[in-house]
Amino acid sequence: MKPAILLQTDFSTTWSAVAQMKGVIKIVDPTLEIYDLCHEIKNFDPWEASLSLDATEPYWPKGTVIVSVVDPGVGTSRRASVALLCDGTYVVTPDNGSLTHLKYSVGIAEIREIDEAKNRYQAREEVSVFHGRDLFGYCAALLASSKISFAEVGPAYPVNEIVECPEYHFKPQISGTSVDTWVMTGLSHFGGIQFGIKNDAFKALGYTEGDPVHVCISHKGDVVFDQIVPFAKSFGFVPEGAPVLYCGSSLFVSLDVNCGNFMQVYGVGFGKDWTVHLEKCS
Amino acid sequence: MKPAILLQTDFSTTWSAVAQMKGVIKIVDPTLEIYDLCHEIKNFDPWEASLSLDATEPYWPKGTVIVSVVDPGVGTSRRASVALLCDGTYVVTPDNGSLTHLKYSVGIAEIREIDEAKNRYQAREEVSVFHGRDLFGYCAALLASSKISFAEVGPAYPVNEIVECPEYHFKPQISGTSVDTWVMTGLSHFGGIQFGIKNDAFKALGYTEGDPVHVCISHKGDVVFDQIVPFAKSFGFVPEGAPVLYCGSSLFVSLDVNCGNFMQVYGVGFGKDWTVHLEKCS
Amino acid sequence: MKPAILLQTDFSTTWSAVAQMKGVIKIVDPTLEIYDLCHEIKNFDPWEASLSLDATEPYWPKGTVIVSVVDPGVGTSRRASVALLCDGTYVVTPDNGSLTHLKYSVGIAEIREIDEAKNRYQAREEVSVFHGRDLFGYCAALLASSKISFAEVGPAYPVNEIVECPEYHFKPQISGTSVDTWVMTGLSHFGGIQFGIKNDAFKALGYTEGDPVHVCISHKGDVVFDQIVPFAKSFGFVPEGAPVLYCGSSLFVSLDVNCGNFMQVYGVGFGKDWTVHLEKCS
Repeated sequence: MKPAILLQTDFSTTWSAVAQMKGVIKIVDPTLEIYDLCHEIKNFDPWEASLSLDATEPYWPKGTVIVSVVDPGVGTSRRASVALLCDGTYVVTPDNGSLTHLKYSVGIAEIREIDEAKNRYQAREEVSVFHGRDLFGYCAALLASSKISFAEVGPAYPVNEIVECPEYHFKPQISGTSVDTWVMTGLSHFGGIQFGIKNDAFKALGYTEGDPVHVCISHKGDVVFDQIVPFAKSFGFVPEGAPVLYCGSSLFVSLDVNCGNFMQVYGVGFGKDWTVHLEKCS
Repeated sequence: MKPAILLQTDFSTTWSAVAQMKGVIKIVDPTLEIYDLCHEIKNFDPWEASLSLDATEPYWPKGTVIVSVVDPGVGTSRRASVALLCDGTYVVTPDNGSLTHLKYSVGIAEIREIDEAKNRYQAREEVSVFHGRDLFGYCAALLASSKISFAEVGPAYPVNEIVECPEYHFKPQISGTSVDTWVMTGLSHFGGIQFGIKNDAFKALGYTEGDPVHVCISHKGDVVFDQIVPFAKSFGFVPEGAPVLYCGSSLFVSLDVNCGNFMQVYGVGFGKDWTVHLEKCS
Repeated sequence: MKPAILLQTDFSTTWSAVAQMKGVIKIVDPTLEIYDLCHEIKNFDPWEASLSLDATEPYWPKGTVIVSVVDPGVGTSRRASVALLCDGTYVVTPDNGSLTHLKYSVGIAEIREIDEAKNRYQAREEVSVFHGRDLFGYCAALLASSKISFAEVGPAYPVNEIVECPEYHFKPQISGTSVDTWVMTGLSHFGGIQFGIKNDAFKALGYTEGDPVHVCISHKGDVVFDQIVPFAKSFGFVPEGAPVLYCGSSLFVSLDVNCGNFMQVYGVGFGKDWTVHLEKCS
């Protein structure tokens, strides 16, 4: 059975762009199955693309061909690439930081730059703004349908040349159970935020479910949220409307409000200007 | 041929949650087809989940495996269940009111609580906030792919223990052609509202297309909308911008504006505080 | 292999309407594959439906059955039709202007009015507001699954009776490299606008990549934007935040901001009241 193709973009589904990508894939091979990862990645933001790939890749069959097109440099000289992950899954993407997390979690076995002369859809040559359709989607379809081998994607280049988001290397400062890190991202829909420390690293410090935790969030040094919050198994272990710290499904420690939207309720955002201090209450 | 899996959540498609659910289903069985019912159910609202399931279930093949995850109690002691409907379709869902309408329309032949020890995805045991992926989606895939039988889902429990939304039992008050009921829900996109009386019950009172109807909508007793509105076959039978009462596709009597958004134009909402009086004009 | 069905509507995905359409298609033939073109077409706007069909159709396999339901006249006497395009693709749609662009680009070989007595889903006869599900989707499934032939759709009628959007005939005024046209549409998500002149027609006037172009956009005659903008291969050839004129993927000349939203930044909209003057700088 051929692998499925899984699509991630910052295109939204408010216009036909994603459907055009899917159609070109179907022109290559109508038997390919195509699914959506997410099309609401923050516009032009490889960091969010990288986080989303890392959160999703482990939950798809090995060998899936993932296409991620968050591509502020479309049509310029940035590399258009296909990465073979260490578990056999492929990621077809501009090499612009979108591979950062996967490089350090699953690992990248090999990466190749797409040969545009051979692996680009030729129907509309005057258009250079839609590599999602004409290059990434098309090349992914060739690969998933075995019309080309991985070697035929184009020339390999060293894995250590892969572009990384510098934010990835903001490591948490840890001392005992005290953790200083940042608010790495947030999910607008439910309003939860994710901190720059993984679930397992946090538990390894001695945190267990039920522990009260001092959580202090600051924006450019000004305290915005400062409360004792339970570290709980899930939302329903605190009253409705109360904050709760938990092991996030993205594998990073997360904070939200039970049946509410933490970012809206407390006016908290995310990004480099937002830092957090976590400490176990004695 | 295996049944399709149909997914409903309140997760939105702004992040990768739905894609993670789909990936786990594909890990169980890559030949399963997965479709989306709706991922914009009002957050944490089993009433809206129940209405949406009831409106959609009749239009899918019998035997479809529907997954509905609107689950404010995720990780707590609420039952995670699979219902076998009287027409052979399955619904995999937290038993929290989401089954209310189907229980009284199609009917529920049997319900079983999912045995988490056997039918839960084991890859990420420290995460307890994503039962949509790890429990409901996974168990649905086992069932749809015949890797488990319905009996192997877990222990059956009495259908009369199924949790119901109390709003379901707000029955319309009827006297002749006079109907007092509530504004049960509304659709933000087109702006139409649905009343707590079914199309066929309304027609049985003697209403026929073309009848002028006195429609009076109140919020906590204050009249917000009070007009004579035609009961028409469809929107185009009234002028653009005019209100129209019609047999809704959800099978409940509905009110909207032709080529407009009733809720926005008239400042009308829905829920327990919104009541309506309908009466045939003589 | 059966052709895929591709769905376009103005229903949004905030409620179950699209899923109900898909379910009825699966009831007709569970082996049919269904994909989404776009469900965010501007409500009740056949012009936008027509543009979107024209932008997407070339990128799907010939023979695909496209369903487009933007149908302000649902339930009234407008024709419900199936068009056979000159390349073998089908479009199932209300004949209300939605076919305008395809009529002049790909061409329409033949058009038939759907015989409702034979090709309408009969399960819910009292509902007349959901032809997307009960008529267009159902008929498309019959056709894609070969349960009916194209001739069995219903009676043919002359192609020259197809309803056209009058805006299509707003031709650009051209004199040398000077172009006067209108802002035909815009994409809310990225904020780019499309002008009423095709990429190839523009290039045929002598414009080449790198040319500075005087772009003057007016609203009801008042100038809103007036700058020299480079005509470039893609966004990344201008600095971040700068405007750029380019060959749009919809095949119409387009204007946006690199990594920004042109319509928001400059307060520009689209439609009949918005005109543009383009002229090559010497």
